[in-house]
Amino acid sequence: MTTANQNRQFRLAQRPQGLPKHSDWELVSEDIGAPGDGEILVSIEYISLDPAMRGWMNAGRSYIKPVEIGEVMRAGTAGTVLQSNHPDFAEGDKVSGNFGVQTHAVVAGKEARKVDTAIAPLEAYLGVLGMPGMTAYFGLTDVGAVKEGDTVVVSAASGAVGALVGQIAKLKGCRVVGIAGGARKCSYVVDELGFDAAIDYKNEDVYKGMKQHCPDGIDVFFDNVGGEILDFALANLALNGRVVICGAISQYNATDGMYAPKNYMSLLVNRARMQGFVVFDYADRYAEGAQAMAGWLSESKIKHREDIVEGFENFPDTLLKLFEGSNFGKLILKVESN
Amino acid sequence: MTTANQNRQFRLAQRPQGLPKHSDWELVSEDIGAPGDGEILVSIEYISLDPAMRGWMNAGRSYIKPVEIGEVMRAGTAGTVLQSNHPDFAEGDKVSGNFGVQTHAVVAGKEARKVDTAIAPLEAYLGVLGMPGMTAYFGLTDVGAVKEGDTVVVSAASGAVGALVGQIAKLKGCRVVGIAGGARKCSYVVDELGFDAAIDYKNEDVYKGMKQHCPDGIDVFFDNVGGEILDFALANLALNGRVVICGAISQYNATDGMYAPKNYMSLLVNRARMQGFVVFDYADRYAEGAQAMAGWLSESKIKHREDIVEGFENFPDTLLKLFEGSNFGKLILKVESN
Repeated sequence: MTTANQNRQFRLAQRPQGLPKHSDWELVSEDIGAPGDGEILVSIEYISLDPAMRGWMNAGRSYIKPVEIGEVMRAGTAGTVLQSNHPDFAEGDKVSGNFGVQTHAVVAGKEARKVDTAIAPLEAYLGVLGMPGMTAYFGLTDVGAVKEGDTVVVSAASGAVGALVGQIAKLKGCRVVGIAGGARKCSYVVDELGFDAAIDYKNEDVYKGMKQHCPDGIDVFFDNVGGEILDFALANLALNGRVVICGAISQYNATDGMYAPKNYMSLLVNRARMQGFVVFDYADRYAEGAQAMAGWLSESKIKHREDIVEGFENFPDTLLKLFEGSNFGKLILKVESN
Repeated sequence: MTTANQNRQFRLAQRPQGLPKHSDWELVSEDIGAPGDGEILVSIEYISLDPAMRGWMNAGRSYIKPVEIGEVMRAGTAGTVLQSNHPDFAEGDKVSGNFGVQTHAVVAGKEARKVDTAIAPLEAYLGVLGMPGMTAYFGLTDVGAVKEGDTVVVSAASGAVGALVGQIAKLKGCRVVGIAGGARKCSYVVDELGFDAAIDYKNEDVYKGMKQHCPDGIDVFFDNVGGEILDFALANLALNGRVVICGAISQYNATDGMYAPKNYMSLLVNRARMQGFVVFDYADRYAEGAQAMAGWLSESKIKHREDIVEGFENFPDTLLKLFEGSNFGKLILKVESN
């Protein structure tokens, strides 16, 4: 199956209906390419699995062009430079970039970002120091315009983005309530991450939980899940509340249309806003976000947790963990099994 | 029935289910009160009929306290001072204020605003120079953050607020598309008010109309109606679009729940925001809005149209015109028949 000179890839075989099935993927092996001028060859060690990937598999206009049938699946990755024809990179450098679901990639040097594993291990550059970190930072501070004293509620609170949103909000002097599935995740966000409260959406009435834990209403709702939980949050908004639409993982595999928020007129009643964003738009401010996150990390003010699954061939099943909610922390595929 | 010394009032008899019925109102006559210290007695000549009134009739938390059973119905009004015990007002002064659905009111002087009928006739202070004018001005410029070159779409385009929104947007250098019901209203907004295009929601496919008239998407959607039209607008948003939630008249009498916007994830795809507002929050900036509107009015750059129904006793039926869409222009009840 695997040989030393082969680049294994997961390519999109067909567009999924609902949850992605094995038959939606094609596992391909091809020769590892040689880098041309200005290019580098990267051995990919870690592949980021993110909810947004489901959207990229759909046809049609979105914030980014869809992955085409037959293309290597798009993904954030981190690895080691094997060969470099670019002056900024040397063999052995650790890099991150959107190199796709494959074991090797030949990319232009400008597509890669050198990372410092003295600050954090390589895989952290797919989480706290990568897209999830930037998403949490800019979504909360810029889109959510969070300020001291706010009550912040975040869904998917133990997930890659949610856990960081809540911790940043605590650092900003907010009261923070997380929504997560199951007692283990809920106690994690309260006991480990320092959230003020958690609501277990699998076992509790989320609406009542919000009423109880946010007696003065929700100033910022950072939504990763959509569905009914968004509606409950709208119903509990405080005056001038901000709803940050980061994602809607509960709806990405819906085959009969998205759940629509019935309570949107709460935006009028509360003079509130609901705003979507895409982290890529903040590319010119990543340095600011990365510096903030690395600073908190170095002071041990931010905890992060990765859920690492080993074995490249496990990509299709591992991706599904996101939609089952069975991952616990930032879900990452480690290409080689130990 | 009516006597010279009687104050006639419509009081809320019960909370309506769906459209307000005659039995939801009680027509009461009582003696006209005498103004105390700092108070004035006003003879009400015009009563403003606004979509928001339907919301005020419901129980429960909203942006303003509900009208209680037995209370005089809340309404914007304009009239003449009959007696004054307040230094700022003299007999014969024309004033406006929220004096309710009644023929006379004794109110504190600070509740009344003196108006200048040299600028515009008294009834205009319930429309272009009143709440609808302020709503259009601040909703479009502040909440909608409209700027030159924007494509602006407004629903209920021939209504009190919509007609002003579109005209202000034209004055700001925007492309303006109105949505209205019927050929007459549509030709009015294009031919009389100078909108670039109109979509007749009663006879056209609104989604297709938006696609046709807004080929680069909608930068600002100013929504007065809610329902499916909001969903179509969401689906046609431009990058960084703003949806201004001013009202949802199509839904105010819904007895089986509000229509929920299925396409809200367009806010993410387009990095867009949807924001509600309440004009009362701009009270400390009314002078700015009134000056702008009066300026445009004096230069004949803004047209306004009132739909005046005569006879106080016609209040219950007249209010329904708003929900039928059978009014054409700012709906006003004139207390005395000519």
